[in-house]
Amino acid sequence: MKKLINDAASAVRESLAGLAATHAGLLQVRFDPTFVLRADAPLRGKAALVSGGGSGHEPLHAGYVGPGMLDAACPGDVFTSPTPDQIAAATRAVNGGSGVLHIVKNYTGDVMNFEMAAELCRSEGIQVEAVLLNDDVAVKDSLYTAGRRGVGGTVLAEKLCGAAAGRGQPLVEVAALGREVNGTVRSMGMALSSCTVPAAGRPTFSLGEQEMEIGIGIHGEPGRKRMALKPVREIVEMLAADILDDLPFRRGDMVIALVNGMGASPLLELYIAAGELERVCAARGIRIARWLVGNYITSLDMAGFSLTLLKADERLVGLWDDPVRTAALRWGV
Amino acid sequence: MKKLINDAASAVRESLAGLAATHAGLLQVRFDPTFVLRADAPLRGKAALVSGGGSGHEPLHAGYVGPGMLDAACPGDVFTSPTPDQIAAATRAVNGGSGVLHIVKNYTGDVMNFEMAAELCRSEGIQVEAVLLNDDVAVKDSLYTAGRRGVGGTVLAEKLCGAAAGRGQPLVEVAALGREVNGTVRSMGMALSSCTVPAAGRPTFSLGEQEMEIGIGIHGEPGRKRMALKPVREIVEMLAADILDDLPFRRGDMVIALVNGMGASPLLELYIAAGELERVCAARGIRIARWLVGNYITSLDMAGFSLTLLKADERLVGLWDDPVRTAALRWGV
Repeated sequence: MKKLINDAASAVRESLAGLAATHAGLLQVRFDPTFVLRADAPLRGKAALVSGGGSGHEPLHAGYVGPGMLDAACPGDVFTSPTPDQIAAATRAVNGGSGVLHIVKNYTGDVMNFEMAAELCRSEGIQVEAVLLNDDVAVKDSLYTAGRRGVGGTVLAEKLCGAAAGRGQPLVEVAALGREVNGTVRSMGMALSSCTVPAAGRPTFSLGEQEMEIGIGIHGEPGRKRMALKPVREIVEMLAADILDDLPFRRGDMVIALVNGMGASPLLELYIAAGELERVCAARGIRIARWLVGNYITSLDMAGFSLTLLKADERLVGLWDDPVRTAALRWGV
Repeated sequence: MKKLINDAASAVRESLAGLAATHAGLLQVRFDPTFVLRADAPLRGKAALVSGGGSGHEPLHAGYVGPGMLDAACPGDVFTSPTPDQIAAATRAVNGGSGVLHIVKNYTGDVMNFEMAAELCRSEGIQVEAVLLNDDVAVKDSLYTAGRRGVGGTVLAEKLCGAAAGRGQPLVEVAALGREVNGTVRSMGMALSSCTVPAAGRPTFSLGEQEMEIGIGIHGEPGRKRMALKPVREIVEMLAADILDDLPFRRGDMVIALVNGMGASPLLELYIAAGELERVCAARGIRIARWLVGNYITSLDMAGFSLTLLKADERLVGLWDDPVRTAALRWGV
């Protein structure tokens, strides 16, 4: 294993310290229990947003903490859920009296630990709502999940809910928006190579020299099928068809699209995939109103990509365009 | 070779088409000769900025085209200089009557082709200035260069010159600023793995399972030395010492820092490196006023990173903070 780390045991902690050092004024990090929060938290009167999950998916979630997006993120160890005490501490720290929304990806450990933290905080008088993301159409049930997994749709939900909360919408409305987003967002991914978890020291799985995995999860957990590597045009057609047919998306729909790199795939390649997605959607009469292309929810050093499409109306596009200032996503400020 | 492409021969063209499709309204792409330019070019009365170089370093340079940065970028084939006719066509297209600045990385082919294009455009009555970037302290002369190579400092020069031009500064002043930046910016990189050029189909070089290359170039060309892999703390200390001692940077200096991923190194790791750089600089009494951490000048799918430090004053930091709107770097708009 070749990694730019000092020690697998302290890698997450050191990375968070580096993130906070390079974004002083925007972010602060607290340890034991560990979470990242806005430098200006808590914000009185604003519904606060807390997300979290295993590390190894950077910039998710700590890279999305800041004005217009999350108030705090709780990073677990690599591919390991954060503990209830991390989540509860973050929830208390960002609550500005108007309650806290938990944005949770659908993995068994995450769901359980966020629920425990929510119960604890509610017992202390904090209003807590939760939104569950389960946008991955690839598989139902997996190594980490009952039901569908939460993947790229989470990034979009965090942006849109963050914008709504930033506009002063009350917690219940922001939560309803999050559930609405989860209802109309769909994703699917693929891998060319495995990731290597630092503490494991070897690839999570292996793929043949001309093989790819379709429907891969963001922890390297198995997808839908293995098959011979194809031109990216055919891969995008395959992933996009599964996404588009699932909702289904229909002629005339407007969407927000995310072409997401898994960590080790060059931007040169991701933009080829984006061009193919544009073509597939245009052929079905679907208009892509907004784009993100890059590494937004990764799987350490995995090569591959995922596609996410969110059915959007003018209201969602308006929220999308609201200013955001985070380490990984920034515009308007 | 496993890549998300359709055909190595058309990969650059398809990637540029994807970039333009996903950033319609901001960018346009022209083919034969190939260049990317601002959607609103030419801008009457503004000194225009043109850069370019081999592809494979995305988001450099096309990802930096837009308000507050470049007016056009000329991408060659992977690791191949753009031709004089590409550069001349871009120069003509963005000239708004106030002349054009060429921002050139110091590689033999790039220098020659930009000079030929500049001569051609001058003979047509266009005022052309050029700034050469040669910020890599690792080696003097290499496979691609006479003298030092141009690397991460280029990103900073493009941002700062773009801001100056955006403020309405005349061409000669913007060019002088670019030369000033090149005078006080220094970089050095390292690799954990080779990149694979699509048309070659196999890794450019090979490294042992516990080996790294210090002082690597952005085309996989040899660096200063190979050695056993070390903790990232020691790697950062080594690279930073070479950078800091070269200018030299002194106690009390303020700098802008870039911690740049070579393409396949996770953000989790880059932020550990950033934290180490902060520590090294603090110990020398050097204050890092602004940061970029991420994949900004890459080498396809190479794992590794580079460090860039620019000695800055309040004026440069002010230019840095000016609004910028490009595919890869955006704030304030």
